[in-house]
Amino acid sequence: MGLCQTWRRLRIPGLQACGLHMAAVPTPPHWLVERLGLFEELWTAQVKRLASLAQKEHRTIKISLPGGQKVDAVAWNTTPYQLAQQISSKLADTAVAAQVNGEPYDLERPLETDSDLRFLTFDSAEGKAVFWHSSTHVLGAAAEQLLGAVLCQGPSTGCGFYHDFFLGKERTIKGSELPALERICQELAAAAQPFRRLEASQDQLRQLFKDNPFKLHLIEEKVTGPTATVYGCGMLVDLCRGPHLRHTGQIGGLKLLSNSSSLWRFSGTPETLQRVSGISFPTAEELRAWEEWREEAELRDHRRIGKEQELFFFHELSPGSCFFLPRGTRVYNVLVAFIRAEYTRRGFSEVKTPTLFSTKLWELSGHWEHYREDMFALQPPGSDSHAGSQSDHSTSHPTGTLALKPMNCPAHCLMFAHRPRSWRELPLRLADFGALHRAEASGSLGGLTRLRRFQQDDAHIFCAPDQLEAEIRGCLDFLRSVYTVLGFSFSLALSTRPSGFLGESCLWDQAEQVLQQALEEFGEPWDLNPGDGAFYGPKIDVHLRDALGRPHQCGTIQLDFQLPLRFDLQYKGQAGALERPVLIHRAVLGSVERMLGVLAESCGGKWPLWLSPFQVVVIPVGTEQEEYAREAQRSLQAAGLVGDLDADSGLTLGRRIRRAQLAHYNFQFVVGQKEQSKRTVNVRTRDNRRLGERDLVEAIQRLLELQNTRVPNAEEIF
Amino acid sequence: MGLCQTWRRLRIPGLQACGLHMAAVPTPPHWLVERLGLFEELWTAQVKRLASLAQKEHRTIKISLPGGQKVDAVAWNTTPYQLAQQISSKLADTAVAAQVNGEPYDLERPLETDSDLRFLTFDSAEGKAVFWHSSTHVLGAAAEQLLGAVLCQGPSTGCGFYHDFFLGKERTIKGSELPALERICQELAAAAQPFRRLEASQDQLRQLFKDNPFKLHLIEEKVTGPTATVYGCGMLVDLCRGPHLRHTGQIGGLKLLSNSSSLWRFSGTPETLQRVSGISFPTAEELRAWEEWREEAELRDHRRIGKEQELFFFHELSPGSCFFLPRGTRVYNVLVAFIRAEYTRRGFSEVKTPTLFSTKLWELSGHWEHYREDMFALQPPGSDSHAGSQSDHSTSHPTGTLALKPMNCPAHCLMFAHRPRSWRELPLRLADFGALHRAEASGSLGGLTRLRRFQQDDAHIFCAPDQLEAEIRGCLDFLRSVYTVLGFSFSLALSTRPSGFLGESCLWDQAEQVLQQALEEFGEPWDLNPGDGAFYGPKIDVHLRDALGRPHQCGTIQLDFQLPLRFDLQYKGQAGALERPVLIHRAVLGSVERMLGVLAESCGGKWPLWLSPFQVVVIPVGTEQEEYAREAQRSLQAAGLVGDLDADSGLTLGRRIRRAQLAHYNFQFVVGQKEQSKRTVNVRTRDNRRLGERDLVEAIQRLLELQNTRVPNAEEIF
Repeated sequence: MGLCQTWRRLRIPGLQACGLHMAAVPTPPHWLVERLGLFEELWTAQVKRLASLAQKEHRTIKISLPGGQKVDAVAWNTTPYQLAQQISSKLADTAVAAQVNGEPYDLERPLETDSDLRFLTFDSAEGKAVFWHSSTHVLGAAAEQLLGAVLCQGPSTGCGFYHDFFLGKERTIKGSELPALERICQELAAAAQPFRRLEASQDQLRQLFKDNPFKLHLIEEKVTGPTATVYGCGMLVDLCRGPHLRHTGQIGGLKLLSNSSSLWRFSGTPETLQRVSGISFPTAEELRAWEEWREEAELRDHRRIGKEQELFFFHELSPGSCFFLPRGTRVYNVLVAFIRAEYTRRGFSEVKTPTLFSTKLWELSGHWEHYREDMFALQPPGSDSHAGSQSDHSTSHPTGTLALKPMNCPAHCLMFAHRPRSWRELPLRLADFGALHRAEASGSLGGLTRLRRFQQDDAHIFCAPDQLEAEIRGCLDFLRSVYTVLGFSFSLALSTRPSGFLGESCLWDQAEQVLQQALEEFGEPWDLNPGDGAFYGPKIDVHLRDALGRPHQCGTIQLDFQLPLRFDLQYKGQAGALERPVLIHRAVLGSVERMLGVLAESCGGKWPLWLSPFQVVVIPVGTEQEEYAREAQRSLQAAGLVGDLDADSGLTLGRRIRRAQLAHYNFQFVVGQKEQSKRTVNVRTRDNRRLGERDLVEAIQRLLELQNTRVPNAEEIF
Repeated sequence: MGLCQTWRRLRIPGLQACGLHMAAVPTPPHWLVERLGLFEELWTAQVKRLASLAQKEHRTIKISLPGGQKVDAVAWNTTPYQLAQQISSKLADTAVAAQVNGEPYDLERPLETDSDLRFLTFDSAEGKAVFWHSSTHVLGAAAEQLLGAVLCQGPSTGCGFYHDFFLGKERTIKGSELPALERICQELAAAAQPFRRLEASQDQLRQLFKDNPFKLHLIEEKVTGPTATVYGCGMLVDLCRGPHLRHTGQIGGLKLLSNSSSLWRFSGTPETLQRVSGISFPTAEELRAWEEWREEAELRDHRRIGKEQELFFFHELSPGSCFFLPRGTRVYNVLVAFIRAEYTRRGFSEVKTPTLFSTKLWELSGHWEHYREDMFALQPPGSDSHAGSQSDHSTSHPTGTLALKPMNCPAHCLMFAHRPRSWRELPLRLADFGALHRAEASGSLGGLTRLRRFQQDDAHIFCAPDQLEAEIRGCLDFLRSVYTVLGFSFSLALSTRPSGFLGESCLWDQAEQVLQQALEEFGEPWDLNPGDGAFYGPKIDVHLRDALGRPHQCGTIQLDFQLPLRFDLQYKGQAGALERPVLIHRAVLGSVERMLGVLAESCGGKWPLWLSPFQVVVIPVGTEQEEYAREAQRSLQAAGLVGDLDADSGLTLGRRIRRAQLAHYNFQFVVGQKEQSKRTVNVRTRDNRRLGERDLVEAIQRLLELQNTRVPNAEEIF
């Protein structure tokens, strides 16, 4: 009997439905057929065993449902799916898996004892994980059938799934192969093949996967008990903990997104694998919506906006450092000026500290011990770079080594300590926009999100313990003010002492209580992350949400009991004795560069007037108005506004107006003969609203008002 | 006959006058006495020889005096001093030396032939040199007599004189010895000992200085003719070209300033010498005036002001980098904002470029070849610092080496080149306040004058050749505007092509002509420094003068033909062909840090309102007004002004007003009961002018006006 005949004769679920593409796929390899045959054998035995078990016992068990309801079920017989059907057909349709006594559980797997039962749907993170993990089985099956792939691993990720497989030493997967692979995935999904859970002994496992060295490795290393689970789905049999969907038909929409390579490092020499990534949804509609969202996000990619709007660029001669072009620098400086204005209002003092410090500073601060891998260190010219390397083994750097600062805090501690301090000077709030350098791996660099050089709106507050609560309240208020102006919502979380925290418990008790109190008074909802604080102090994590609903961590409020100790910071207290200040690290924008990227994406390049590098373009109707247009432009510029001119006589007025809209100029000042004679401008917004004729001087005055109040909707309220 | 008796019996001019301190000085060494004996012998012979010469010839010679007048004189007899007496007794008193046919000449040295005669006084640089050179003979004589010093050399300097001498291998001169030495100098000066010029043969010279190895060396190396001049003055006999004062009595005031050591490197092994420096003046009054000026300059030392006003400090953990405290940062930011405002007015575009670049960039720009000794270079973490060091001998740095930028120009060239450019974009004026690092030797660091880290108001103008003149005019106008606001006068100099210039002659011709034309149109006087330009282009040097009249080089305007070539910069010309732009480097403040130091010294810590970190202090009369005072302070701060509060109830009102004056607050707002009830403030200036009661809101408004117009005298025109 030829392999091909075996393949066609096998009566396995879904195989008939696969008939659609059978012509397109090559003859299945013999090991696939043998594996399926063995699985069917074991499966039949398991079905019989369970049936007899259920019949023999016929035990009634108690199941607690989510609402608190309790129902009876039959041990080794009733499945979560049956119970879901009893609750509602909608639940039965949308459930992707169950949790039984807190453990993930297949919907079709019979319940065994009294249990708490909960259903997972795609809406939850756990439900998505089951859904995407099931989808990667479909991808694996397609890769086996279309490419003869030897599967390795296929996990779900936070935003979809991937599968790693081996195609032979020479063969790589090409992007052009993804459409065919995707089509097969979609057909396998449409075939609604059930996921079948099999409990197999170690021997049986080794027999099932005898032709797959990756799985044999995994069995060797990971399977510690006498048995492990294996799932069958269509022709695929895979070693897997589960749970899965009931059947592949629950996958209503599936898309493959990218191909790349990955390294298998399980043991021995590494092997290069092929990786295909994808995403899937319960319905085709949800997939479509996601594709639209992704398209929008790509359009809003700050790297794209940065290039199109000439805000910034990168160059291989300075990897990880951004070159800000004139327009990007404008946005950057406006952001900094905004924070500076807040500093003035809020009693922060801006300072300027050096960029390059002796590594002795970083030893004192602890950065050299914990962070040196990420720091740029150097020998000053003229020093012998080997000097001291023998005598100074403990720190293994020569005397005189300097390092670029990755953070401002140690410099601010030196500043606090440079002369005696009194309680009258506290709280001392030192703010610094100094350039920071961190040696991020070149692979992790991308746009403004991760840089080697960046500036923060970094401030350090040195205060007395009894000033802590007011300062934290001030920090929270600062955050809210800035994020409100920038149009972000945000969420807060308090992270408390981890195991292995440094310092006295009573100090931590007091500080955590103070933070909690400040959060409660602040009035915004917040979460508690017990044990998630840094070893040197508790902190408040801030996540903001941009206009696309995506989260970003930018701001932070972080207590530090350790640096004041390390730098032996002291002040003369009211009673005359020396006391130790508490240190608060805080930032609102975080990295100014990164925030600029977040803002570019959030507004999709349509900047609010006050931040905009495209505030006004003056458009003369004809060449006769060009001189007046230039005058209007000069008036705008003299007022400190961005005033550009589009006097390109090669383009019609209409085309130039359209061009201004596409460039997202907040306002267009169109000037014709009438406007020239009356010294007015005809104002249009970037959404092509015509605001009509305005006096030039008054229009500029109004723009300044709108700019200075940092309104988000200047075009609407002009 | 004992040495002591010889000493006392010697009948030498001035010795009797020295009787005053004879008790204090030790017995003169025998060689000094022998030297003096020999000198007297030779001198007597010379006097006789000259007398007989004059008598034998009795030739009349014609002397042309400065005004054009001609007088008769007797060869070998008439002296310049006698002619000066004929002109005026004042001239005879104030003349320090003469110039005869352009040659320096002692006033008491008989004229020999027909001559042009000119008199030198202390007012001229040449006169000062003679005066100070004569003074160092007095210092040498004192050192011999008090310390038994073996004299080496004693030149005049631009600001006084010093004498190097040897005291033995072990002995150094101590600061505590200077007063005694100075007293003897003053006595020797008061003794009005004449300077006697002797023409001596080489043999006689060697005989005179047989006990002084330094002088013997000098005779060996420097005396090439058959004779050389020697001067006697009191007991001192010294090898010296002259001329000198008539007698030491012309030195009305003399002060020794410092002691240090120096190295004698004439030949053979170096010898450590002792150096004493001093200054002298024709009258005691002039010395006193100079001492006052010096005291004022010391008071104005920016390091002192920086410390007293808490503007900045330095720390050993970051040598050569300044820590700007809140007040210093304010001044710094105001200066930058001033230049930014000018950039907006003048069509400059601010950009932000990285700090760290691959050394490939510095190779391309030529900095690596010419400047690498002054650059901070480093290996990124994780790279093997020895990689490539063998294969890459020519540049001797591993691939991947990075260096901190010492200048912004190469980054701006990358920015120009990052996409195709058109003639429509020119002139492109890119400005950058990026931090620069230069590895200055630690010995040369001092205050803000020389730093390892600093920022410049650096801009690079890329323009078409036919735009050059307008751009240079613009740069000159920029300079004048800024320096006028800062209260500096300035002088300009055009430096043209040096030998070994790079590029085509015709380009240089054209550029130098353009610069010259721009300078002439500019209307300020300027000098020509032929051959003083850089090899890559001609330049305009700018020297400003501060309020003490001291010169500083801050601004520069520099053409560069080479960088556009090295970076292959091109733009599409109006005719469609690719053309090469010209590059102008320019700065007005130069280093912002250094300018801050110059300004601090120039204003002596009394900052003009707009730059001032001490604008207003609010002083409540009593504790009842403290709340209102705080409100006034908040209003000032909300307006962006520096508003401090002195509510120290431990001090009387008068003491607090005095304290505010000493701190140089531009204004004091005193608030008592009346002011509180009327919501006014009582305004005083730092010069204690009482401007009376003003409405709080109006006073703040007026301060803002005065600040925004950057007036130098806000206190006078409030």
